[in-house]
Parts: sequence; C-alpha cells; structure tokens
Amino acid sequence: MAETRILSARWVLPVVPRGTVLEDHCVVVRGERIVEILPDAQARVRHPGAEWLEFPSHALLPGFVNAHTHAAMTLLRGVGGDLPLMEWLEQHVWPAEARLLSAEFVDAGSRLAVAEMIRGGTTCFSDMYLFPEETARVVDASGIRAALGLTVIDFPTPWARTPGEYFDKGAALVSAWQGHPRIGFTVAPHAPYTVGDDSLRKIRARAEALGVAVHMHVHETAHEVSSALAEHGERPLQRLARLGLLEQPLAAVHMTQLDEHEHERLPESLTSVVHCPESNLKLASGFCPVARLLGNGVNVALGTDGVASNNDLDMLGEMRTAALLAKGVSGDATAVSASQALEMATLNGARALGLEAQIGSLEPGKYADLIAIDLGGLEFQPAHDPHAQIVYAATRDAVSDVFVAGQPLLRGRELRTLDLDELGAMTRIWQERVQAAH
Amino acid sequence: MAETRILSARWVLPVVPRGTVLEDHCVVVRGERIVEILPDAQARVRHPGAEWLEFPSHALLPGFVNAHTHAAMTLLRGVGGDLPLMEWLEQHVWPAEARLLSAEFVDAGSRLAVAEMIRGGTTCFSDMYLFPEETARVVDASGIRAALGLTVIDFPTPWARTPGEYFDKGAALVSAWQGHPRIGFTVAPHAPYTVGDDSLRKIRARAEALGVAVHMHVHETAHEVSSALAEHGERPLQRLARLGLLEQPLAAVHMTQLDEHEHERLPESLTSVVHCPESNLKLASGFCPVARLLGNGVNVALGTDGVASNNDLDMLGEMRTAALLAKGVSGDATAVSASQALEMATLNGARALGLEAQIGSLEPGKYADLIAIDLGGLEFQPAHDPHAQIVYAATRDAVSDVFVAGQPLLRGRELRTLDLDELGAMTRIWQERVQAAH
Repeated sequence: MAETRILSARWVLPVVPRGTVLEDHCVVVRGERIVEILPDAQARVRHPGAEWLEFPSHALLPGFVNAHTHAAMTLLRGVGGDLPLMEWLEQHVWPAEARLLSAEFVDAGSRLAVAEMIRGGTTCFSDMYLFPEETARVVDASGIRAALGLTVIDFPTPWARTPGEYFDKGAALVSAWQGHPRIGFTVAPHAPYTVGDDSLRKIRARAEALGVAVHMHVHETAHEVSSALAEHGERPLQRLARLGLLEQPLAAVHMTQLDEHEHERLPESLTSVVHCPESNLKLASGFCPVARLLGNGVNVALGTDGVASNNDLDMLGEMRTAALLAKGVSGDATAVSASQALEMATLNGARALGLEAQIGSLEPGKYADLIAIDLGGLEFQPAHDPHAQIVYAATRDAVSDVFVAGQPLLRGRELRTLDLDELGAMTRIWQERVQAAH
Repeated sequence: MAETRILSARWVLPVVPRGTVLEDHCVVVRGERIVEILPDAQARVRHPGAEWLEFPSHALLPGFVNAHTHAAMTLLRGVGGDLPLMEWLEQHVWPAEARLLSAEFVDAGSRLAVAEMIRGGTTCFSDMYLFPEETARVVDASGIRAALGLTVIDFPTPWARTPGEYFDKGAALVSAWQGHPRIGFTVAPHAPYTVGDDSLRKIRARAEALGVAVHMHVHETAHEVSSALAEHGERPLQRLARLGLLEQPLAAVHMTQLDEHEHERLPESLTSVVHCPESNLKLASGFCPVARLLGNGVNVALGTDGVASNNDLDMLGEMRTAALLAKGVSGDATAVSASQALEMATLNGARALGLEAQIGSLEPGKYADLIAIDLGGLEFQPAHDPHAQIVYAATRDAVSDVFVAGQPLLRGRELRTLDLDELGAMTRIWQERVQAAH
C-alpha cells in the first residue's frame, strides 16, 4: 500500500463547495490521490503512523490550472512590448520565431516555463505551441501535469509544412504519450483566421476520436470578427457552430466579442471560455464579458497566455486581475467574488480540459495536485479572510509548496525536480540568441 | 563631510530622461543626497575610498511615491470585500471605524502600513486619515517620507467634532512637525459630498498659506457626479473651480468621470490626477481616462488607496494594473508604456505633492530615495528589457533594498527600522478587535 502523508494547515480551501474555509484541517494523501479531509485532531487518531507535514500559517488549496499558454515563448519575455496585436505578432514575435524556432528552443523555453509555473503554484497547464514532443518530455521529467495541444495551422512553420504533416505529427505525439498519468491532449487549431474549413472538419473528428477538447483562440479582437464578416459573411463563432465545433468540448480562448445571439447560445453548447485578462489588456484586444458568462452558467477558466504578451506565467496575478477587471467591466462590485475567482483558476480550468473528475478541487479520490500559500507575511495581516488575502493581496512568492499527484515539486520555495543553476545558464545562452534575432 | 556611498548596479533607471537604461552604472550618494550617476569604472577612480555596495543582478530606480492612501486602514484588510462603494463604506468600513478608531488604532495601522510600503519599495506616501499626529510619529521613527493630509470632513469623527476642530488639529500638526526633513503636508478635504463651501474656502486659504497641495477624492463615481448635479445643479469639479481650487495645486484622486469641458480645462489648471486603478476596479467605480489625460499633458500620479479596497499597498502591482488597464480602456496597446508607468509611480507622484525638485527621479542634488529590484530570479529571464520586466513581471518580493534620504530602511529584504515580530504581535491583537467590531 502506498505511503500516507498528512498535510495539516491553518486553512484548507477545497474550492468545492464554493467559498468553504476549513480551519485547522488536514488533507490526507495516499500515493497519488487525496483520501480524505478532516480536522487535525481526528487525523491524528485515524492515521497515527503517517508522515505529518505542518503548514501552520498557510492555506492549502488545489493547484492552479493555467488553461491557456504557449510555454516555450517564455524565452521571448519582454520582446516587443507596448505594441498592438498584429504589429507585435508580425514585426516582432513571428520574425523572432522564424529565426529561432526549433526543438531546442521549445525544450529550453518549456523548461523555463515549467519552473516558473511550479514556483507560482500552477500544477497543470494547457499548452498550444509547436514541437510539443519537446514539451511532453519536460512535463514528464518535471512532474507537472499538462494538456498538450496538437497544433494545426494552415501555413508552414519550422515544425510542419502542410496541414497533413501537422495531423501526422500530432498523431505521433499521442502514440508516444497516451496513457501517461500526467499528460493529456487537446486538438489545437491556432485561430479561425489561420485554419480553413477542411482542417476544422478533420480537427472535429480527431477531437471526438480522442475524446478531448478543441483548444483555439476565438474572437480575440473586434478586428478578427469584422474581417471574417467582411471576407466570408460569417462571424468566426458562427462558422465554428456550422462546422459542429460547439457540439463538442471547445476551450475558446479570449472571447472578447460576443453578440446577443452568442450569449444565448453559449450556455447550451459544450464550450468553455478561457479568459486571459492580462493579455487582453496588454494587447488592447477587448474585454471578455466574464460576469455575464458566469451568470449564464458558462464555464469560464483562466489562462496567462504566453509570456510574450503578459509578461509572466503567474496565475495568482492573473486571478486577481480577473476578479478586479470583471467588477470594472460589469460595473458591479459584487461580480466575481474572491472564491469565484479561485474556482475559475482551478476547477473551471479542469473542466475546460475535461479533467474535473480528476483535479481542480480538494476532494477524496482526486489527484493530490495541491499547493500551500503562506499567509504569515505582514502583507497578509490581519488575515480576516483567506480567500480575499489570496486573491487580492498574495503574490507568487507566497506559494511555498507544490505537489502534483502527491509528488513534491516545490518544498519551502525550493524546486525539487528542476535545477535553478542549469536553468540560469541555459537562459543566458538563449537571451543572446533572441537578442541577435529580433 | 558626510560619508560617500556608492551603489553599483547592473541597471540604473533614473526615470529622467524617460526610458533611460544605464548599464553597469553607479549612483553616488553623499549623506542624504545623490551626488552623481556615472559608469562603474569612473566611479572607482573618482571615489576611491567610498563605501561600495554591489547590486549585480538588480535595477536601481527612484522609490515609489504612493500618491493616495489611508495608511491606518491597513488593519481593515479584507473587511467587507466584493461589495459596492456605498454599501462597503456604510455597512462595513464606517461601522468598524466608529467602534475602533482611536489614536492607538492609527498608530498600529500606520506602523503596519509603513512596514508593508517599505518592503514594497515605496519611499514616500500621501496619506489622508484621522489622528495624523500618530502617523507623523511613525513616519519620523521609521525613516520613510510622507505628505500627511490635514483632514477636513463636515461631520464629527472620533478625531474632531466640528470643522473648526479639524482646522485647529491640522494647525497643531503643522506646528509640531514643520521643518522635518521627511514630513510634509497636504490639506485634505475628504470629498465634495462631505465638505461644504465654507470649509472649502478655508481649505483653499490654508493650502495657499502653507504652500501645499489640496488632496481630495474627486469624481470617484458617476453617482457622485449625478447626485451633485441633481442636488446642487453643479458638477463637483465645476464647484471646485468656482471656489478657486483649480488655480492652486490640487491632487484630485480617482477622477473616473470627465466631460469634454473638463478634459479641455484640466491641462491649464494646477490639478494632478491621482489614479488608483485597483480600488476603482474593485469598487466598480469607473475608469479614469489615463491615456487621454497624459496625452493632454495632465500630471497623472498613482496611488494604492487604502488597503480595505485594494487589498495591499503594493505600488509595483498598482503600476502594472495601471499600465495594462490604460491600454484596455483606451483600446490602444501603445498607451502608457512601461517607462511611462514607472514615471507615473515615481516622478508624477512627486509632482502631485510639489516635491519634484527633491524626489521622484535619480538626479544629482535630489534626495537619495531609491530602491533596488533584483531581476535575477527566473521569473525575469531572459531579461531583455528591465523596464518591461519591472512593470509587467516583477512582484514586490523582488524589492531587495530601500533607501530614503540615504538611510537604509530595507537591506536584503530585512527591515532596518521596524521590528517584524513586534508588528506581528500587535497585528494579532488588532485582528481580534476588528473581528469583534464588524
């Protein structure tokens, strides 16, 4: 029988039921899974021989699910900032990628990204990028969990030349890693304006066959919608509906543009919205109507987007921005409470990936993907309300410990599966290459 | 002659001229003031005997000027969150204050606030609260710099019962501390809806006599403006103009509502706008048109507001929110660049307080109010652009060292003038009192 480990904390925030705060409780972990959550005194009686870990000034909560990122782009942090989306893409990001993109770039960028995510309390990320076989190796070795996108884009890149080659390479990735306990997939067409109907039909079939979600940038800007209308007489979401993509799980990223018909239709679809507030703000892409979507029962998850438009992979910061921005945009200070924001950053992300039975909350039977946030620092005093302190006052350095499937990846802020010095040396090499390339 | 101390850093960001990045430079400090800024090699030759401090992976920049806060309210962190402004004030904050507010509360809250501000890189704050004589003692002892508001409000509080008493107590504060090298003042009428014309006329005269700015919440919400119009037929800003307050330095806090006439008039006035983006979002107060104001040449400074509506005193976070939100609200991804955001958080704050000749940038002759931010952590790699890394990727824990008037207040993240254990013990007592009171 696997070893039993007891995590005893000042507060446990299980996310389910929403807003629950358990004081002086324990999370009991056996092997990869959560066994039960109970008061300290009971745990001592029921599990007398178990390993006991103390978190005296901490909150324990499910790890964050970063529902949209481009991990390897972390090597482009701060490249071409303060620019509009198309200029940023066409004059900075794409030229740099064209010169640099390779298996080695994706390996290095993914390692840096995963280290940053672990240090920030992210235990699962949904990735969309090229050379995902490199990212898969990093996920496997680092102990983090991920849903890797089988990327499709109707133009050639250093990874694949034709739509057929994208599909083949995606199939190879699935063959290599299917059944891995921490690696899952999405089918990931880049965006409506870069993927044609033929590819989208194949993508739908591929996602259905694999039993996974489609993961796609959708309605990122008003310009995307108006150009589609001008060129094809159809809004991108209307086109996805025509192609059947709203009848299967779809993680629609950004979604700053929604008309009345779309607001009515979305709750009946299998679509999750992945909100990336800092990227939307930074690129002036528009405002996702988060409060209305949640009010209508749409599943809204959170993502950081890639570092090039953020400039970090910090889900705590993203959660705060989401909670604040939803109030400002809706004009309602009660919109997206602290506990609802935490749910977006955890359980709703799991749901967008079809993993809500496995992760996203602290419940018996789920994977022990959990984190400790130390609320002992003076920036959290007085600690009247741990949800509010975490969402509105915490920064990533308060994340002290991270476990995925029961395995410690961060203990007392120290990375356990990645080497900081090695990452530093590697990044210095890439910094020079990136500076030479853009 | 005062001792010479040389701070040698990977990057120096002097703020003036905007966007300047000096690599491998030194800031030479003698006593309280900056003497010169020059390359490392030259500094070694010119100041051979000086004390040499190394900041090998750090940026040196002016300390942040928090241009609007209510320091003592830090004891109310997280009280009554996720509520609209008037409900939050009337049902949570004011009742808690009515039961708790005292000299002892303000002393304790100010100490906690100042410790948090120093740890976050704030070297000067503009305060508006009651019992400012307590805050003054904390400022004096802690080594931070502040402009203390001589608060006026037309109803009784535990500090003063009548407008006359507010003026008298303000005068006593000035008598006690005038001439202190780190304590300045503003005259601080709470808001247009709580201070009548008679008081505002006296406030104008008082500010003029003291040669200081008026510091006031103005146009925080649309409701404030529409009620004033309904009750008095005058917009609050129009009323302040009629009373002559736009012809003297005015730090107008919030300013989410501006009509065309006000946009035309403000650049000709002596008014600074103090933008508090996180408070405005959290209370759904509206959006300050920052990009347009800056474009018109209005001085826009930044404030955190009080912790009860934020929930921290973190100027790095506030600066990031300001830079991101300005882009989203203006629809222009080039609005408020990283270097402009840094200017708002430093020099523009100094200007709003009439201190731009003394602080707010690293220039010879100014006070050595400066901070080091360590960009060595992996969350900043690769470090392509220090302004972007600081504004878009840094969190307050990266602030390693803080100096005010040349005196170290934080060294290697350790507070030098305040005791963490003592603050912790004090805060625990107040946590119980606050919980009993609301």
